[in-house]
Amino acid sequence: MAAKTTARSLDTATLASEVRAGNRAALARAITLIESRRADHQAEARKLVQALLPFTGRALRVGITGSPGVGKSTTIEALGMALVGRGHKVAVLAVDPTSARSGGSILGDKTRMAQLSATDRAFIRPSPAAGTLGGVAAKTREAMLLCEAAGFDVVLVETVGIGQSETAVCDMTDFFLALMLPGAGDELQGIKKGLVELADMIAINKADGDNLKRANLAAAEYRGALHILTPRSAHWQVPVVTYSAIAGLGIEELWQKVVDHRDAMQASGEFAARRREQQVKWMWTMLEDRWQARLRADPAIRAKVRSTEAAVAEGQITPALGADQIAELLT
Amino acid sequence: MAAKTTARSLDTATLASEVRAGNRAALARAITLIESRRADHQAEARKLVQALLPFTGRALRVGITGSPGVGKSTTIEALGMALVGRGHKVAVLAVDPTSARSGGSILGDKTRMAQLSATDRAFIRPSPAAGTLGGVAAKTREAMLLCEAAGFDVVLVETVGIGQSETAVCDMTDFFLALMLPGAGDELQGIKKGLVELADMIAINKADGDNLKRANLAAAEYRGALHILTPRSAHWQVPVVTYSAIAGLGIEELWQKVVDHRDAMQASGEFAARRREQQVKWMWTMLEDRWQARLRADPAIRAKVRSTEAAVAEGQITPALGADQIAELLT
Repeated sequence: MAAKTTARSLDTATLASEVRAGNRAALARAITLIESRRADHQAEARKLVQALLPFTGRALRVGITGSPGVGKSTTIEALGMALVGRGHKVAVLAVDPTSARSGGSILGDKTRMAQLSATDRAFIRPSPAAGTLGGVAAKTREAMLLCEAAGFDVVLVETVGIGQSETAVCDMTDFFLALMLPGAGDELQGIKKGLVELADMIAINKADGDNLKRANLAAAEYRGALHILTPRSAHWQVPVVTYSAIAGLGIEELWQKVVDHRDAMQASGEFAARRREQQVKWMWTMLEDRWQARLRADPAIRAKVRSTEAAVAEGQITPALGADQIAELLT
Repeated sequence: MAAKTTARSLDTATLASEVRAGNRAALARAITLIESRRADHQAEARKLVQALLPFTGRALRVGITGSPGVGKSTTIEALGMALVGRGHKVAVLAVDPTSARSGGSILGDKTRMAQLSATDRAFIRPSPAAGTLGGVAAKTREAMLLCEAAGFDVVLVETVGIGQSETAVCDMTDFFLALMLPGAGDELQGIKKGLVELADMIAINKADGDNLKRANLAAAEYRGALHILTPRSAHWQVPVVTYSAIAGLGIEELWQKVVDHRDAMQASGEFAARRREQQVKWMWTMLEDRWQARLRADPAIRAKVRSTEAAVAEGQITPALGADQIAELLT
């Protein structure tokens, strides 16, 4: 094996031009730089991302969520290979703030996507190591920008089916895809309420063989339910489709919906508007995360924040007074 | 008419004890003090709320939303009178950040609730004057605490059917009720996606006369749709009920659901947990609102924030760099 690459082996300008040239090793090194917690690395990482910013934004960004067992990796493998076959360059990233706790990151094991990880036209990167959700999401957003600068024109961002991480991934993508399992009637898998607001499409995997009928019934039931909800955009009614990643059925049709959505959103101007809003929201989120980091950095301050939160939770002091006390800690 | 009460006519301690004694004029004055933008009034208001805090929290807090024309005031009038008839003391508040723009506040015209506003056992207060949503919501939350200290044991908080104000009201109440109109099939009123996540019950008004059948059909359709969603709590399946505020039908049954929900949530411990979480969230929201207020206070800073947001939105600078620039403005 090659020696472990270090984040410092190239200067920022060289690293930027190597990334732009599509050098995969440079891209991996650049992402490692972004993920580093060292202050000097972080300063360099910012310069790097700023330098590459003009070359970003050209990929179609797709978020993918689903409960464990739904077949996320198989889906990404099948979809990724189909996209590579069409001439796309596909980057696969992940947001999983629980990765350290659970002892392994989603996507950590590339054997889960054996074909895709073997092709030059795909780039797979596991979730950044655990931290706060804000920290993990920020690093994945920047990794996405670097992948775009390196010429990847489709970015798939996988997430675990946990509320806040789904919101974070939805906030960094153009299309948010929720994967479900077949089942009908009493067996039907419930759609999480929060997910209804985020999903641009619901896709039922494992629609093959004996499951086909159940998958179609489930799709009809989901369609009926979604029909009663006001669409977020007048130009997009959330579709419910069935497919089988393992049998390779319906993958092209699934991707076609993503393309249809992009076309509809671009025609209405919502595509660019959503990106602009996301970028401004990222900025405010980063600012807030930074304040939160300051509050966590010092053990004495952290203890004071916790006791203030407890006093507010128990109704001993008003939220306003609690806010005063925390504001004082920050000045 | 009596002379306009001033916020300064009583000292804080006296005002607090008058509020506790259930003096309605004192309660109105205390809320005026809370709503004042003068710095000295705000300092006094904080002391007042802190002093009354031990006497708060005993009311059942119910948020009510619905599109214009759904019959919110008629519903609150009918529900409020039924509650007063049962021996409750009912406070009616509102969150409407658009009130100044639209030229009139919801609840501003008490003739919309003629009976309720005539009884001693009810207290109706229009939405605080327009400001940011955060400012309006903060004042309503504190007004709610004062009403509780004054002995009101049911607080109804009305809101207009606009996304963020619905979230704000949901975040300050124990039960969130969404009012809808009858209609079935193609005529069916869509449920907003965001509302699905917030609502503890959907109630279809105007279920009387010719509308009855359509209302029942609509209820069945909504029930079918909601059934597919995973409930937020294992102890509460969101019910869909029909009623008629104007005919006085189904009001008792509607309230019974609110009580059933409270009982279920208290038995599971979720009632207290939701309140604790709400209080901590209020605190962080207030802290954030305060930073935002600092950024808006100075015209030069405001202009700089706007140009930073624009540069981030247009992709000229990274969100991280934008966050740096704004952080510098705050130090």
